[in-house]
Amino acid sequence: MPLLAVTMGDPAGIGPEIAARTFNDERIYHNCRPVLVGDVASMERAIDITGSRLSLHEIDDISKASFKPGTIDIFNVGGTSPQTITLGEVSASAGEIAFRSIVKAIQLAMKKKVDATVTGPINKEAINKAGYHFSGHTEIFAHYTGSSRHAMLLINGNIKVIHVSTHVSLRNACNLVKKERILEVIHLLHEGLKRLGYPSPRIGIAGLNPHSGDGGLFGNEDIEEILPAVLKAKSQGINAEGPVSPDTLFALANGGKYDGCVAMYHDQGHIPFKLLGFKWDQEKQSMTSVKGINITLGLPIIRTSVDHGTAFEIAGKGIACPDAMVSAIEYAIKLSGN
Amino acid sequence: MPLLAVTMGDPAGIGPEIAARTFNDERIYHNCRPVLVGDVASMERAIDITGSRLSLHEIDDISKASFKPGTIDIFNVGGTSPQTITLGEVSASAGEIAFRSIVKAIQLAMKKKVDATVTGPINKEAINKAGYHFSGHTEIFAHYTGSSRHAMLLINGNIKVIHVSTHVSLRNACNLVKKERILEVIHLLHEGLKRLGYPSPRIGIAGLNPHSGDGGLFGNEDIEEILPAVLKAKSQGINAEGPVSPDTLFALANGGKYDGCVAMYHDQGHIPFKLLGFKWDQEKQSMTSVKGINITLGLPIIRTSVDHGTAFEIAGKGIACPDAMVSAIEYAIKLSGN
Repeated sequence: MPLLAVTMGDPAGIGPEIAARTFNDERIYHNCRPVLVGDVASMERAIDITGSRLSLHEIDDISKASFKPGTIDIFNVGGTSPQTITLGEVSASAGEIAFRSIVKAIQLAMKKKVDATVTGPINKEAINKAGYHFSGHTEIFAHYTGSSRHAMLLINGNIKVIHVSTHVSLRNACNLVKKERILEVIHLLHEGLKRLGYPSPRIGIAGLNPHSGDGGLFGNEDIEEILPAVLKAKSQGINAEGPVSPDTLFALANGGKYDGCVAMYHDQGHIPFKLLGFKWDQEKQSMTSVKGINITLGLPIIRTSVDHGTAFEIAGKGIACPDAMVSAIEYAIKLSGN
Repeated sequence: MPLLAVTMGDPAGIGPEIAARTFNDERIYHNCRPVLVGDVASMERAIDITGSRLSLHEIDDISKASFKPGTIDIFNVGGTSPQTITLGEVSASAGEIAFRSIVKAIQLAMKKKVDATVTGPINKEAINKAGYHFSGHTEIFAHYTGSSRHAMLLINGNIKVIHVSTHVSLRNACNLVKKERILEVIHLLHEGLKRLGYPSPRIGIAGLNPHSGDGGLFGNEDIEEILPAVLKAKSQGINAEGPVSPDTLFALANGGKYDGCVAMYHDQGHIPFKLLGFKWDQEKQSMTSVKGINITLGLPIIRTSVDHGTAFEIAGKGIACPDAMVSAIEYAIKLSGN
């Protein structure tokens, strides 16, 4: 069974609570051997908050893990004298723990001590306050694994969407719609979907402009960059189709026409992903469901993640839902196995 | 009860069939007095195809309409010697009929002979083949009503989204994200929603860049153009909020947080709209549902429309679903009443 390093995320957010909830369900041990990477003091508090029946077993090497339901094997990155992290607040000390957890998990995977990494939610500002200038998990993973060729895949149900670019302005995103990068991303998705069990995945590639430019009437990227990449992919034996009108692609994928989609920019993929995965409850004034996970493809190691944030506003309330972390673990298992 | 002019759309598409289905349900006469504008020969064929129990009553003035269930009052724009339009094919003669229907409906509304117009699906290429160089309904309505200040509102359930721009390249759409236009569109939406029965509509305004630019990290439009427009709208008493992260706005609206949304570009609004409204059936290899309507706000007359296309691939099969046209009529009634 695959060995997984799961990070707790930012200790001031809901990460420790969803980790406690996730490890509290013994079914997690049926298909994998998970260890947690985080801060013991924060996990003790989260176990209290969630009313979980769990004890912590500190380890300094994977060989010491016992993988016993009811006991979390944890690499403690929090130091020997536990600091008190205030829940719901951005702080350098929380960022320090979140950052160290990620680096530790990466190291375990790079040294092949674990088969995959699964990450909890972090706060970018806290990481930066702690002195680590990264814009998110992906950049940290890319840096510490020495990867330049990677892309973000979001998964929720039938929506599986990889992105040509992510955290850049929309104007810059238009500049990044280039044949080479699109082809790279199609290949990353193709390989990723094969590892997820699709032998010949059907891939739908979005256009950039409305109606994919309507034959060049508005914008040329669809004809000059996207279409050549799709044709090249097809000539390489990939079951690719596109450019598909961006406003129809995700309705088609949701109905089962494609196993995966390529989005040309962040929101083209994130809008349909979150629309189906996130449920806002107007009465409770909160998101009651934040389904969906995030996989970084193209790294030398496996990384899956929850796609929601730290949800500071509900940290400590014991109501955070662990579904996304459970799903991230399931996908890490699938990717490890294939 | 409001008088409505309903256009049949392109006679080679599903327009005549959905018109026949719509008029065949006598409930349509409970809340309005509808007349059809189109081609008698095409409607006769559509009545056959759909197995409707309808007869046609040609009129040349609204005063001659009888509004009797089972009889469609029709302004015939098809001429005296009916041409045979081939179903499922783009042609100038079909475009000619589609175009004349629209102009006739606009004239009826401009002369206050009817209270509102409702349009069926047209084919842009056919219109252009007939010699009318417009990129769609909206542009025809703008031209013949002399309107420069208008915007496209899409409605399906809780998703009600107006667009700062529509049929322009994504690069150009970025250039059109300007404070004045955003404020104009907020006002159009505010007025439109009030006419639809929301006394103080809650309006969510999308950002342009991922996470609305994350405080200026990627792109400045959110800070320099969108935020000032939102603040100005608020100072004018509009219940506006934004810029909201584009990938979260529609999940919030879908859950009931906003009565209407402002999208900065075509696909930002169209992707969530079609994802929820369009259902792809993988077994049948067709869209089994194409819910949702389109309203042009800012015109001196009321115009609602189906938002789906002519669906040439199923024209003549008698399977086209009239739900969107029924819904467009309902919204035309609401707008006429308030």
